[in-house]
Amino acid sequence: MLSRLANRTSDIAPFFVMELLGRAKQLEMQGRDIIHMEIGEPDFATPQIVVDAGIRRLQTGDIKYTPAAGLPELRQKIADYYQTRYAVTVDKGRIFVTPGASGAFLLALAASVNPGDEIVMADPCYPCNSNFIKLFEGKAITLPVDATTNYQLTAELIKRQWTPSTKGVLIASPSNPTGTLIEPDEFKQCIELVNECGGCFYSDEIYHGLVYGKHAPTALEYSDNAFVINSFSKYFGMTGWRIGWLIVPYDFVEAAEKLAQNIFIATPTLSQYAALAAFDEQNLEELESRRAEFAVRRDFLYNALLQLGFEIPAKPDGAFYIYANCAKFTKDSYEFALEFLEAEGVAITPGIDFGSFKANEHLRFAYTTSIGRIAEAMQRLEQFINKNKNKG
Amino acid sequence: MLSRLANRTSDIAPFFVMELLGRAKQLEMQGRDIIHMEIGEPDFATPQIVVDAGIRRLQTGDIKYTPAAGLPELRQKIADYYQTRYAVTVDKGRIFVTPGASGAFLLALAASVNPGDEIVMADPCYPCNSNFIKLFEGKAITLPVDATTNYQLTAELIKRQWTPSTKGVLIASPSNPTGTLIEPDEFKQCIELVNECGGCFYSDEIYHGLVYGKHAPTALEYSDNAFVINSFSKYFGMTGWRIGWLIVPYDFVEAAEKLAQNIFIATPTLSQYAALAAFDEQNLEELESRRAEFAVRRDFLYNALLQLGFEIPAKPDGAFYIYANCAKFTKDSYEFALEFLEAEGVAITPGIDFGSFKANEHLRFAYTTSIGRIAEAMQRLEQFINKNKNKG
Repeated sequence: MLSRLANRTSDIAPFFVMELLGRAKQLEMQGRDIIHMEIGEPDFATPQIVVDAGIRRLQTGDIKYTPAAGLPELRQKIADYYQTRYAVTVDKGRIFVTPGASGAFLLALAASVNPGDEIVMADPCYPCNSNFIKLFEGKAITLPVDATTNYQLTAELIKRQWTPSTKGVLIASPSNPTGTLIEPDEFKQCIELVNECGGCFYSDEIYHGLVYGKHAPTALEYSDNAFVINSFSKYFGMTGWRIGWLIVPYDFVEAAEKLAQNIFIATPTLSQYAALAAFDEQNLEELESRRAEFAVRRDFLYNALLQLGFEIPAKPDGAFYIYANCAKFTKDSYEFALEFLEAEGVAITPGIDFGSFKANEHLRFAYTTSIGRIAEAMQRLEQFINKNKNKG
Repeated sequence: MLSRLANRTSDIAPFFVMELLGRAKQLEMQGRDIIHMEIGEPDFATPQIVVDAGIRRLQTGDIKYTPAAGLPELRQKIADYYQTRYAVTVDKGRIFVTPGASGAFLLALAASVNPGDEIVMADPCYPCNSNFIKLFEGKAITLPVDATTNYQLTAELIKRQWTPSTKGVLIASPSNPTGTLIEPDEFKQCIELVNECGGCFYSDEIYHGLVYGKHAPTALEYSDNAFVINSFSKYFGMTGWRIGWLIVPYDFVEAAEKLAQNIFIATPTLSQYAALAAFDEQNLEELESRRAEFAVRRDFLYNALLQLGFEIPAKPDGAFYIYANCAKFTKDSYEFALEFLEAEGVAITPGIDFGSFKANEHLRFAYTTSIGRIAEAMQRLEQFINKNKNKG
């Protein structure tokens, strides 16, 4: 029988980490103690003030559809947030509340990508980003980047790559998996270049807020002519609520509205009402103390990995990941991750989930668990490395 | 400046009803009393037992990501529901919990539609269904249908239409906007025909449960080889929660899993926990009493419209819509709807939102408001018609 699958499904690889996750769960069922450092989800619960807002809304019993673009009062709060956090004025008519950053990507790319269009992005990068492009028959052009550019694209790289098929450029800062930021000047030049070329600039800002000791500018500080993707998942601690937002350039407002009506109907109502409380002063204080905790973990993990002999040539300034070079220990980081899980019960993510450039030499460690557990994981890692050394 | 919009955005029309809705809101702000019969959303609140389950979950504070395919216990409950309601055994590995039926369509079509693929469906039909196909560069082939076939496709129609470009067939029963069911024998023949042709069969069953005096079979009663789209929105009264499900044929399980990971990450966690309570015996009793209320409204509205001179050649057996022929009163049902709203403050949906076949001669009335309000709307409609008669 001929395959009935759409061709795009064979272009999209499953996440390798899912295999690890499955094995980790099996081991847990067998009673093993597994330390989870593979997960891109904060260990902190949703802040109480947000939960309480959700409960209050639920108690009204009114959980009907909202407008496709989101509750007007939430769009306003997001606009206000850009004013206070970045000193940027955003017309709330450009802001679409979406089912997570996933929904924001879906909307932005459905509105802008024609079959064959090329979108340029960094390798390594978050795999869903390139898969969303494939979903709409576009091509993700991934350019190898390394520590010399903070694992980020540069205007020079983009310029060299630009062809008549290039539709736009995607930059994620802080980046997943590397946690690194693009330099503000470089960021500005990239946006200006894309605008000069008449392309679309997509700025993945879902780790904004989780930045340690630096300022991560929004693309909107440099130009109104950008798609900005953000989320309540990471900084605001609302992963399972599936709520994020998309800011579109003016020429895309009408199309995004139509598409949102058709693709989503609307973002989950309860999540929108709960998110109204996310910007409360008291909540932002709570989030800042969590950020401080992440910063401590980042420093601890960074130093521990260096001490064990991993190379981390660009110190990550944001997100909750460290992308460490493990070439000293293995030529196959996926195998390393599987064996480490099996032997020591620590789950980490192999580089191949994020691209192909030196992917086999890299591992992503997520510091989404307590400092005590991270310390324990590092002891187990040391043990694992020493055992392997003695074997070899 | 050249348009940067993806071409698909011009193939997707905004819903005309949105203009009506906008005007209705303006009029309400001016203090006018508007009766809403344009909305495809039950007026009933989410059942208390489901709300309570949501509150209990919220109180745990644990609203993290779930597996991409959904909570295993919810997938099991959905499988059990097919056993008790339809006496059909469904492997829960084929069941994907999705962000509404919207998410289910997105997943099913992303997994199966290649650019240029044709999907056959009825005209009139729910506009999002054809728009989802355009999203993936497929073509929606809409076949005019009328009351002689209950506004449904037939095996004969499909056979005549089938070409090498035909990828599959979509049948929605009960249908939106007509509320009509496909005859079980015809349904079976359609599915068998599509299977013989090696195509994909998509069964939109989102109004299942809201059927009055008949049984609406699921496609799975006839074949395992079908996509079934369903939702907690309509029958279960959970619109704003954005939760539905998709059942895929075996050959699509792996692709659907990959795509769900990439497109959604997961369905809103809280909605999934709340939905666990939706199948409780006590809740199903509540839903049955709501269904009885809908049946009373259907009969009342049906008789009232006939009495006013509208033609409804196929009495609707399900959903909460009546698709009435208004050719006797107007040649432009959109204008009729706008003027009726303006003059009498009743909002209804014009036929052009559902296709092009005799769309200008039809209006959709949703009985998603109380019987008292429906009666009031019918009085206003009579008044409107009489005034227009006197003008003419």
